[in-house]
Amino acid sequence: MSVALVGAGPGDPELITVRGLARLQACEVLVHDRLAGKELLAEAPADALRIPREGLAQEEVNALLVAHGRRRRVVRLKGGDPFVFGRGGEEALALARAGIPFEVIPGVSSLSAVPAAAGIPVTHRGASAAVTAFAAHDVDALDTAALAAVPGTLVAFMGLAGLSRLAERLVVAGKPASTPVAVVSAGTTDGQRSVTAPLGAIGRVAAGLETPALVVVGEVVAVGEAIATAAEAAA
Amino acid sequence: MSVALVGAGPGDPELITVRGLARLQACEVLVHDRLAGKELLAEAPADALRIPREGLAQEEVNALLVAHGRRRRVVRLKGGDPFVFGRGGEEALALARAGIPFEVIPGVSSLSAVPAAAGIPVTHRGASAAVTAFAAHDVDALDTAALAAVPGTLVAFMGLAGLSRLAERLVVAGKPASTPVAVVSAGTTDGQRSVTAPLGAIGRVAAGLETPALVVVGEVVAVGEAIATAAEAAA
Repeated sequence: MSVALVGAGPGDPELITVRGLARLQACEVLVHDRLAGKELLAEAPADALRIPREGLAQEEVNALLVAHGRRRRVVRLKGGDPFVFGRGGEEALALARAGIPFEVIPGVSSLSAVPAAAGIPVTHRGASAAVTAFAAHDVDALDTAALAAVPGTLVAFMGLAGLSRLAERLVVAGKPASTPVAVVSAGTTDGQRSVTAPLGAIGRVAAGLETPALVVVGEVVAVGEAIATAAEAAA
Repeated sequence: MSVALVGAGPGDPELITVRGLARLQACEVLVHDRLAGKELLAEAPADALRIPREGLAQEEVNALLVAHGRRRRVVRLKGGDPFVFGRGGEEALALARAGIPFEVIPGVSSLSAVPAAAGIPVTHRGASAAVTAFAAHDVDALDTAALAAVPGTLVAFMGLAGLSRLAERLVVAGKPASTPVAVVSAGTTDGQRSVTAPLGAIGRVAAGLETPALVVVGEVVAVGEAIATAAEAAA
C-alpha cells in the first residue's frame, strides 16, 4: 500500500499537523519513535499494529517499513520533522528503492518550536538574520571555527552531553564567552525546563538538565529575556 | 483578551498544526499574511473581523494586535513559523510591553517543508549534519565567506531576486561551482515548481521562477535526486 513519514512535532501532541493526524488516525501499522508522545500513539486505531522503533537499527526500521508498506497503510511517526535530523531521507531512499509509494508529511521541528516554547525567536530583526542547526553528539568532530564564524543563531541538537566541551571549543574559536545561551530540556512538554547563561558558564549552569535538550546560542536569547521582562513589568 | 501568534505552515493548508487550527476556528479577529492560504482564512468564523497585513508597516501591525488584543480573541496568522523570519519576536515584544496575554503557536517552517516537498531532506547522514537558513533579500550585506565555510546545507529565504549574485558570491568565497542547488517556487502548493542545477549555473536555470521561492544549496539536493531516480527505476 503506502508509507507516510510523519513528523510528530516537538513533543506537545497538539503541534502535529492536521494531515499528519489524519494519516495517524487511518493507519494499519504504526512505527514510532520514543519522542512521539503517548497521546499521539493513542490516536492510531485501537487495532493498528504498534511497533516501537527503540532498540532497532536503522536498517531494520527501513526493512520493516518496506515489508509492511507493501500491503498495509503504514505511518512512520518521528519526533520533530522527518527531514531535520530525523533520518527520514534514509527511509525515503529505502522505500523508493523497493518501489513502495510513500509521502513525507513535515512536522514542526524542535529547531524553532523548542526555543519558541522558552520565549526565544531564532531570528529577530537587529539580533539575528540566520540560524544554523547542527547535530552535536560528537563535539570533537564539529568544525567549531566555521560555526563560531557564521552569523546569527546556533541551535545544537543532541548537544547536552558534550555541552561544556562545545562551549569551550566555540570560545576558543572566537565566539565571545559573553554570548547568551539557553538550554531547553523537554521543550513544549509538561516537563519543560530551561536555563540561560553566558557561553562561558553554560556548561556549569545546565548541569542536571535531562535529554532531550536543545542548546540555543546567540543574541536572540537576550531578546527572549527582554520579552519576558517586558511582560512581567506590564503585568 | 489575548493574541495567538500562529504559524500557518508552508502553504498547504493541511500543514497547519492542530492547535493552530483550533485557535483560528475560535478567533474574533484575524490578522493575516498574504502567504496564509485562502482555505485557512475560510476556517475562521464567518463573523470574525479579517484584516490583511499587506500594506501595513510592522509598527501598524503591532499596534493593531495590541488594540484588538485588549478586548478580543485575536489570531495573527503568519506564513511558516512565527519565529523563523516571521518577525513574531517583534509582535511578541509589543504585546508583552502592552501587557496583553499572548501565546506563540509554532508552525511548520518552509525551511524544511519546502525542500521536503521537492523530495530533499535538509540533513542526511553522510551528506549533511547541519543546516543554515538565512534571509537573502540583501545579498551584498551577507557574510558569504562565513556561509561558504559553514558545513552542511544552506537554505536561503527571499533569495530568488538576487540568486545570480548570491551564487557568484558563494563561488568567489570558495563554495564549489559544482555544488548542487535547488530552487523551489510556491513549495507545498498546487503551483509548486522547482529546478536544480550546479551553483555555477543556477542563476540562469532558475530564471522565470516566481516568488515565494526557497534556495537549497548542498549535497542533499543530490540525495533528493537519488531518491527520485530510485523511485522511478523501481516503478
